[in-house]
Amino acid sequence: MAVFSHADFADHEGVYFAADPESNLRAIIAVHSTVRGPAAGGTRFWRYESDEAALTDALRLSKAMSYKNAAADLPLGGGKAVLIYPEGEFDRVSLFEAYGRAIDRLGGTYITAEDVGVSPEDMDIIHSQTKYVAGLSKGAAASGDPSPVTAEGVFRGLKAGVRHIWGSDDLSEKTVAVQGLGHVGYALCEKLHAAGAKLLVADINERVLERAEASLGATRVESQDVHVQKADIYCPCALGGALNAQTVPDIQAKLVAGAANNQLASAEIMPLLERNGITYLPDFVLNAGGIINVATEVAGNYSQEWVEQKLVGLEATISKILRVADEEGVTTLQVANRIAEDRLKRE
Amino acid sequence: MAVFSHADFADHEGVYFAADPESNLRAIIAVHSTVRGPAAGGTRFWRYESDEAALTDALRLSKAMSYKNAAADLPLGGGKAVLIYPEGEFDRVSLFEAYGRAIDRLGGTYITAEDVGVSPEDMDIIHSQTKYVAGLSKGAAASGDPSPVTAEGVFRGLKAGVRHIWGSDDLSEKTVAVQGLGHVGYALCEKLHAAGAKLLVADINERVLERAEASLGATRVESQDVHVQKADIYCPCALGGALNAQTVPDIQAKLVAGAANNQLASAEIMPLLERNGITYLPDFVLNAGGIINVATEVAGNYSQEWVEQKLVGLEATISKILRVADEEGVTTLQVANRIAEDRLKRE
Repeated sequence: MAVFSHADFADHEGVYFAADPESNLRAIIAVHSTVRGPAAGGTRFWRYESDEAALTDALRLSKAMSYKNAAADLPLGGGKAVLIYPEGEFDRVSLFEAYGRAIDRLGGTYITAEDVGVSPEDMDIIHSQTKYVAGLSKGAAASGDPSPVTAEGVFRGLKAGVRHIWGSDDLSEKTVAVQGLGHVGYALCEKLHAAGAKLLVADINERVLERAEASLGATRVESQDVHVQKADIYCPCALGGALNAQTVPDIQAKLVAGAANNQLASAEIMPLLERNGITYLPDFVLNAGGIINVATEVAGNYSQEWVEQKLVGLEATISKILRVADEEGVTTLQVANRIAEDRLKRE
Repeated sequence: MAVFSHADFADHEGVYFAADPESNLRAIIAVHSTVRGPAAGGTRFWRYESDEAALTDALRLSKAMSYKNAAADLPLGGGKAVLIYPEGEFDRVSLFEAYGRAIDRLGGTYITAEDVGVSPEDMDIIHSQTKYVAGLSKGAAASGDPSPVTAEGVFRGLKAGVRHIWGSDDLSEKTVAVQGLGHVGYALCEKLHAAGAKLLVADINERVLERAEASLGATRVESQDVHVQKADIYCPCALGGALNAQTVPDIQAKLVAGAANNQLASAEIMPLLERNGITYLPDFVLNAGGIINVATEVAGNYSQEWVEQKLVGLEATISKILRVADEEGVTTLQVANRIAEDRLKRE
């Protein structure tokens, strides 16, 4: 397993391999950048085929966190941890305690949060060993459920996109196809409905679909068909990879603006969207509301004003990305990456 | 390159791979244990054949530091770093600055000091970026040259060995062969001479040999023959590996008590010493005076009383090792390791 020469190590500041034989702990904490502040990013608790697969995941995700946090202009660097699911029996409390001690040994260089496989209870165990956690469900500085803030960020960015394409952010004549009615997707639908948009929605949860029909006048469509709907705007708010070689040619919308992470299945999808005349709002810029919310915890006191200021910034960044992409004839993703990279340079 | 499954990873708490493309930094900081305190150990600046060779070195040396610091009953864990000598041109100041930042990002989990290839000037550069350094040559808390303390520790341990073998620590009838008259070796000779011992000395430095002859009444012998001398005590105070399959069968002394690191060329040498009726005082216990001295810096204030207390402890530990080894019919190295391991257990 290469570390320094790993293809994804590239410009990482470091990667920490932490272990504790007694509790079966094996964790890889990747620190991409601390130039803007502590490297913040969640912990993934996952079974990996190999240590190398775990390292690859940590390296890629930590870099993505740097870009996300920088694009949102937060005083945070980028990091990510993978906690390798032990083979055989293990004690969950001992494991997360040992993991908390490992995080603590990094002295605040890395600040963790929930990610796939980690529960609020696990976070509390980590928190019993280290203060370097954010996104807690309770406590004085807990910022609470980030979903409403994420939805608000997506909504504002989406409106900037509408303004850019149609000259006004009036949504009353627009049809929006929303894929995924989780906490964020549903909250986004409420905002779109309040702004007069017509909603086409898809989800696997029957009850939430009924609620959207009854409360928001939404029309339900099949999940596998949501991207082919005659809609002006398409919002992927479910799993990653919604934009792929199969789906993109069928997308009818002129604007893609969703809350999901990693919407682009691969690097080749961005030029494909361009060729199909679809404007894509980079997901990591658009869905930063959650980390904006969490960032208030790192400072130790939640402030509504600070969150509002960062949401205004998010919308301005989306507008800038669209303008620069047009002016320079490059993709929105290229501009978004460049903005992040500029902000990641050491002074 | 295996990390978690590396043969020497074993019970390490973690290992940090730090990099900075601009300055060509690639460093591996191995943290064996922080159970007793911050992981303290030097930085080696060295050309390695591969990243794996560098990792192996860091892992082995950091574990040795844990054992040394625990055996000396210091409030320090064990760590060690290897700074990989860059290929091609590099700026030494930028490199050591970036390395200092990498140490700082560990937030005090690792405290560095000089080792092979690192100069006092390099240490000052590191110190400009992080407070987590010890063994500095200047400044309020600098403990100064550790050689006299190392020599004093070796001398007291040696006397405990003499007492164990001959029933009294009277050195006036003893002949001591000392290999290596560096700062520590020469200071040890002064103490042995003051106690009445007859000295046989070897070194490659002609001037220091002349001084030992004139001031200490020492007799010079050839370096390659020092271990074969008719002496009661043999003190390896030069390079590592002095005790090997070639030298041990020729050793005339009943007691080996030297200041050198890694005197045993391999694990098989310990039983060979036993079979030859030679009592060996484990080097990492005996030569801990230097790290005892440095440990006062970590606390931030140098105290002669504290150093004295730890030197008394060193002598008592040597006595205990000799007694237990006799009682249980095991080697002195086994007892020394066990004492360290007991002290490394998490409460």
